[in-house]
Amino acid sequence: MTPDEFRATGHQLIDWIADYRRDIARHPVRSRVAPGEIRAALPAAPPELPEGMAAVLADLDRLVMPGVTHWQSPRFFGYFPANAPLAGVLGDLVSTGLGVVGLSWQSGPALTELEEVVTDWVRQMVGLSEAWSGVIQDTASTSTLVALICARERATGFAMARGGLQAEASPLIVYVSAQSHSSVDKAALLVGIGRDGVRLVPTDEAGAMRADALDAMVGEDLARGLRPCAVVATTGTTATTALDPVGAVAAVTRRHGLWLHVDAAMAGSAMILPECRWMWEGVEGADSLVLNAHKWLGVPFDCSLYFVRDPQHLMRVMSTNPSFLQSAVDGEVKNLRDWGIPLGRRFRALKLWFVLREGGVAALRARLRRDMENARWLAEQAAAAPGWRVLAPVVLQTVCLEHAPAGLEGEALDRHTLRWAEALNASGAAYVTPAVLEGRWMVRVSVGAEPTERADVAALWQAMQEAVGSAAA
Amino acid sequence: MTPDEFRATGHQLIDWIADYRRDIARHPVRSRVAPGEIRAALPAAPPELPEGMAAVLADLDRLVMPGVTHWQSPRFFGYFPANAPLAGVLGDLVSTGLGVVGLSWQSGPALTELEEVVTDWVRQMVGLSEAWSGVIQDTASTSTLVALICARERATGFAMARGGLQAEASPLIVYVSAQSHSSVDKAALLVGIGRDGVRLVPTDEAGAMRADALDAMVGEDLARGLRPCAVVATTGTTATTALDPVGAVAAVTRRHGLWLHVDAAMAGSAMILPECRWMWEGVEGADSLVLNAHKWLGVPFDCSLYFVRDPQHLMRVMSTNPSFLQSAVDGEVKNLRDWGIPLGRRFRALKLWFVLREGGVAALRARLRRDMENARWLAEQAAAAPGWRVLAPVVLQTVCLEHAPAGLEGEALDRHTLRWAEALNASGAAYVTPAVLEGRWMVRVSVGAEPTERADVAALWQAMQEAVGSAAA
Repeated sequence: MTPDEFRATGHQLIDWIADYRRDIARHPVRSRVAPGEIRAALPAAPPELPEGMAAVLADLDRLVMPGVTHWQSPRFFGYFPANAPLAGVLGDLVSTGLGVVGLSWQSGPALTELEEVVTDWVRQMVGLSEAWSGVIQDTASTSTLVALICARERATGFAMARGGLQAEASPLIVYVSAQSHSSVDKAALLVGIGRDGVRLVPTDEAGAMRADALDAMVGEDLARGLRPCAVVATTGTTATTALDPVGAVAAVTRRHGLWLHVDAAMAGSAMILPECRWMWEGVEGADSLVLNAHKWLGVPFDCSLYFVRDPQHLMRVMSTNPSFLQSAVDGEVKNLRDWGIPLGRRFRALKLWFVLREGGVAALRARLRRDMENARWLAEQAAAAPGWRVLAPVVLQTVCLEHAPAGLEGEALDRHTLRWAEALNASGAAYVTPAVLEGRWMVRVSVGAEPTERADVAALWQAMQEAVGSAAA
Repeated sequence: MTPDEFRATGHQLIDWIADYRRDIARHPVRSRVAPGEIRAALPAAPPELPEGMAAVLADLDRLVMPGVTHWQSPRFFGYFPANAPLAGVLGDLVSTGLGVVGLSWQSGPALTELEEVVTDWVRQMVGLSEAWSGVIQDTASTSTLVALICARERATGFAMARGGLQAEASPLIVYVSAQSHSSVDKAALLVGIGRDGVRLVPTDEAGAMRADALDAMVGEDLARGLRPCAVVATTGTTATTALDPVGAVAAVTRRHGLWLHVDAAMAGSAMILPECRWMWEGVEGADSLVLNAHKWLGVPFDCSLYFVRDPQHLMRVMSTNPSFLQSAVDGEVKNLRDWGIPLGRRFRALKLWFVLREGGVAALRARLRRDMENARWLAEQAAAAPGWRVLAPVVLQTVCLEHAPAGLEGEALDRHTLRWAEALNASGAAYVTPAVLEGRWMVRVSVGAEPTERADVAALWQAMQEAVGSAAA
């Protein structure tokens, strides 16, 4: 494709995206294709000869679009807000257009230094002290994996340089809560600490980790000759946005010399609001934390910010220094390959830079406050309506709901919940996520898509009531 | 940013990228900024209020562009070809514009099924049998890490479900060659197998792993009560594109029940040429392999294809199944979160789809053949020129060179090599990578940027001769 052909098709696609975003509410939020339908419609073999962009764009509309679940829709209330504001789309376009790969500072000085600067901007925005250094990873799953590898190596005095985990005499133990994200459990298993080394710390009635229980469990493990290694605390759990008491947990980890990783993947964005910072009070006592800028903050996926207090330790764990990557300036620069697992790196800082500069931080704060008000409004409607229950405090933008008609409980209630959630999602009017809370199915409404206004939340509330009616019928 | 504002700035940026690519040869290939220069030019704090896109675009030219090393330049001969063809840039633009996150099939049916289809297209293109299933990872570093975690779990009968690596009695051993990429060594350390568990298998004079030496080392480790676990063979090493004898290595791994991972990150692209497939003969005996479509094949970074023969094993190692991700169709679909480390996933299949359809496979084959011919041409010029030496067979597109004036050897020769390479890179006329081969510095010329034609290679050859002259002066 020549630059002029790119110009022609590029202008078409810019308009295509602009139209898509303008008209996005016309689509059913959840894709209606059946499993295998798209695969079956695509050729089984690659084309030998050029097909021309007109054919590709036609297939984009005809084959791909019916299979899209519309995360950017104002009626998307599923999973979590994964906002991709249009300024961020442009920042990412520039990144791909430049085609720079950050292997080392020299291979992309701007890539490296803009990433240093914008991650530091976010540090300031969320009120972290200057003791933290940030880097962009792909996802919180990876950030947490990196954190637990670093914890493992600190606890073992860099066993990786010797016999590794397999030569260690006393097993490492990692503490998480039963409300932790599945990626936390997965990371502990991937680093080589098996299921037997993962402790589930009990939570209180609000879903928060009990620091006293943690302390007792650590004491018991020490008494048994085991080696407590790391605690993962969550600021804003997936199910209910529950808040682990970071300060009290940090007191335990400090006392016993454990690594503290804070998973603020979702709620970290809210820390740009001073009135929310109590939620992770004590965070300065942590060793690492993750905050997904690609969630509520609104940088197009993927852009997970990983902050650490001891970058030297991170670099010692992750560094590789083959000759072909060495340069004369290595002592003066950051080589971000030593800050995580992949060697190569996209110029992801651009999308963050575009989003922050286009809107300014004040606009981000206003948007997050709007979403929290909308979530509270929905909770108030549900709390006041017969048969509806709000199952968890609405501290941020997630509302956990149940519709329990008189006489319905247990598995029958579960069936009712799954039926009305499916009816709602199948209607295309909105998209919500059913999830299990304390052994029972409920419906999570995650408010916070960029275009979601009060009218959309009101429409959701109306649609939920209709879905409940149709499910009961 | 409204859709109409996006339209206006988007059109500007499409033209900006088209102009950049058209005029790219005018830039010095390597950025000339000094360490810290860009950071110092950027505001220390984020903007409180909107700044407007005009200001952002002005800063893009003024601050960012001087800090770009131009990977897409026809005179870029550094590291490896990381082509970002313009069709792929458009595919990625659509991905970011849609803003879909693939958490599960339901959250993005088209994302999931297009990825299934296009990874299978590549499987056919490189001549792999139907026994292989593919998935997109970010980089080869991550793919190899996934491979070694899977190897660890197969060797231990899923120790992750019990006490993990730390409860295993006999240590696992991983075999790599001294010519393996640094990410292989890093992966072995990250999975918890320490330095003591990594064996460097000797290579022959061509830089290829010696299968007989591997066999002997495995036998010795078994005799000592250790547990050989995995071998990583490389098709196309980083330094010289040397080829480990995959078939002979596979015979060893089969005999001892070891996992065989093939790192074809670079050379895998060449397997679309039937005349190159002898290079990984025996690959069907491997358990996993990685092929970076974002290198020579020309899909914008990041797009690392990871192929496995036993996807059930991969899923068992990587799967998480929290309630909020469950759906009624889980039995009928692929949930790609279970195929790697991250939970979330970009719609990366689009850029691969755009590239393959826009050009067709025939055009890709022609481009790769052009690059190989250009590399051979350069090697011929150097072999015929006084003082120059070609240090390794040119099997693909990498030429390893040395200029050794009479009487210069040892560290003095190293200084000369580094001096002329730096003179060349500092001139901006071209960009090459110095690297160490058998203890001595040499210069790697990696041919294969998308716009690189014979004239560019001829200009490089001219510039190298001038650089040698200026370094000697």
